[in-house]
Amino acid sequence: MGMLLGETLKCIKPADKEAIKKAWERLDNLTKPIGSLGELEEIAAKMAGITGKIHNKINKKTVVIMCADNGVYEEGVSNNTQDTTVTVTNNFTKGITGVCVLAKYVNANITVVDIGVKEDFNHPKIINKKVMYGTNNIAKEPAMTREQAIQAIEAGIEIVDNLVKEGYNLLGTGEMGVGNTTTSAAVFSVLSGISPEVVVGKGSGLTEEQLIIKKSVVQRAIETNSPDRDDIIDVLSKVGGLDIAGLCGCFLGAAKNRIPIVIDGFISSAAALCANKLNNNVRDFIFPSHLSAEPGAAYMMQELELNPMLNLRMRLGEGSGCPLAFNIIEASLCAMDNMATFEEAALNKECYVDIREKK
Amino acid sequence: MGMLLGETLKCIKPADKEAIKKAWERLDNLTKPIGSLGELEEIAAKMAGITGKIHNKINKKTVVIMCADNGVYEEGVSNNTQDTTVTVTNNFTKGITGVCVLAKYVNANITVVDIGVKEDFNHPKIINKKVMYGTNNIAKEPAMTREQAIQAIEAGIEIVDNLVKEGYNLLGTGEMGVGNTTTSAAVFSVLSGISPEVVVGKGSGLTEEQLIIKKSVVQRAIETNSPDRDDIIDVLSKVGGLDIAGLCGCFLGAAKNRIPIVIDGFISSAAALCANKLNNNVRDFIFPSHLSAEPGAAYMMQELELNPMLNLRMRLGEGSGCPLAFNIIEASLCAMDNMATFEEAALNKECYVDIREKK
Repeated sequence: MGMLLGETLKCIKPADKEAIKKAWERLDNLTKPIGSLGELEEIAAKMAGITGKIHNKINKKTVVIMCADNGVYEEGVSNNTQDTTVTVTNNFTKGITGVCVLAKYVNANITVVDIGVKEDFNHPKIINKKVMYGTNNIAKEPAMTREQAIQAIEAGIEIVDNLVKEGYNLLGTGEMGVGNTTTSAAVFSVLSGISPEVVVGKGSGLTEEQLIIKKSVVQRAIETNSPDRDDIIDVLSKVGGLDIAGLCGCFLGAAKNRIPIVIDGFISSAAALCANKLNNNVRDFIFPSHLSAEPGAAYMMQELELNPMLNLRMRLGEGSGCPLAFNIIEASLCAMDNMATFEEAALNKECYVDIREKK
Repeated sequence: MGMLLGETLKCIKPADKEAIKKAWERLDNLTKPIGSLGELEEIAAKMAGITGKIHNKINKKTVVIMCADNGVYEEGVSNNTQDTTVTVTNNFTKGITGVCVLAKYVNANITVVDIGVKEDFNHPKIINKKVMYGTNNIAKEPAMTREQAIQAIEAGIEIVDNLVKEGYNLLGTGEMGVGNTTTSAAVFSVLSGISPEVVVGKGSGLTEEQLIIKKSVVQRAIETNSPDRDDIIDVLSKVGGLDIAGLCGCFLGAAKNRIPIVIDGFISSAAALCANKLNNNVRDFIFPSHLSAEPGAAYMMQELELNPMLNLRMRLGEGSGCPLAFNIIEASLCAMDNMATFEEAALNKECYVDIREKK
């Protein structure tokens, strides 16, 4: 295991339970039926557990977009030409893609990382953390070596460490890489034990016939490489991708630095699941966003015990679900700070019975 | 039927199908897998149908909050004291309640209307449209006369007409009135034919014992008054409330003026359902927000063929779900305007297969 990864895993501590308790005391004293703001209350309390403070403010926020190519492309698992990865990565710098427009709408930045695209970029807005020029074809051989997987994870940790130094305290996770719903389905299938038949979906757009091919490719990748489901690095290196590994590092880095980090869709869910298996305090720092339309996404949310806030049938990727979740998180903090208490509002708290489901 | 109501119903025309078609042409040409922005695309297209334009901008937005008392309070259907309606209505003017804080977060206003609170207000921020000082107890007699129901609906239409003159082009619907989940459940049960046993919920907080009482009260209200389910005014006047009738008018007014209007929770859903039964073009102008935790809410969304965007287990009322929906609607319009087309983005559209479910 790499030194940065090892140290990071040691430094991740659970949520601050005392702060969460104090947050709930305030929430239950705000002028509303107890629990009636639902997830907005859960978010404010979870945030207290992350930072140790009841009142929290987002200073700077960004969506980290890990871009990488996948050798499994050659099996015909996507309708996109492989150079779409290069083109869209370039388009992020122009501000014209879905995540760019949505991030701008909520005053968030995007942080574009080349962690393994087939071509080189020479653009000041694209951070070069290239581990290799695209992975190997997982249907035939491991995607990468164990060392390369660790390098990709550590690149994600470094990215987050730097963002924290720059004052960012809310992160989103996005990706671009033709073929990455295939690798994500493979990783998730191994970790969950759920058959590829169930978790593989149509990604950015496949016909029914192509879907059958994709399912068999994931099945073959798992059979050929026999990843050890109890060894996350083994799973990531054998059937994963550089984007998933890099995002896994981002989740670890956020947990170490005690800042919140938001899942987008299927691929970043797979990365979050890997991070949480490496250290099961990580989920205390993770917020979901929407429920991806990929069939495996709902299972992943269950595994991570997270409830998606948004129900928008999105399946774009890029981190495009994160900006809208940023808004909901900030609205939650705003309610926490600015709603009146029962005393201030001249209302009698005793009128309200606590009807929350007991946990 | 009142003159304003009659004229309004005549003036409501369906969505502009030509504009919707043009909106989809642009949406399908934006640089993303076709349909991959899910509901965000549906919202942008629906908005085109409302205004007749492909590109739309929200100028001013507000949540209309109808405040009224309900005579059924005396049956013990709520834990709140009845003067909570007065207190919270006053608190809206102080900006300290849930909807106030969330509206401010998204730069929306609130429009507070006294359509039937038991006490008088003398406050410049509370619009006086009082029809009566609280309704009668629906468990024993009709809530109001047919004329009063029409007066309340027309008050809602007038409020919207004035807001449109002031430049508002996005509305939310909220309410405050102790006992109004009881009246809403009664209205919905009559219109849907679904038993009170299924649709009645715990409102702002009831014990299991109190819930049983509330269910029997709704049952009794329906049996005592025998409302004609094919006559919406009859249903509203016999088992409804002034807030529901006023909000019903808001939905009609928005449809007449061809501006979008957002549902909050259970009570405004009941009002939306009434409005749509009065003229079935109304739903073309309605956006959902969250799925209320009240058990009848999911049925209402089905009846209106709407998919809630947010999954936050909120049950506060006040219109508190609308501000977050405003944000999603504006994000959708922002994506429509600012994402690049395939041509601009140097991507090949033919790579993407349309995997949307055919309607």
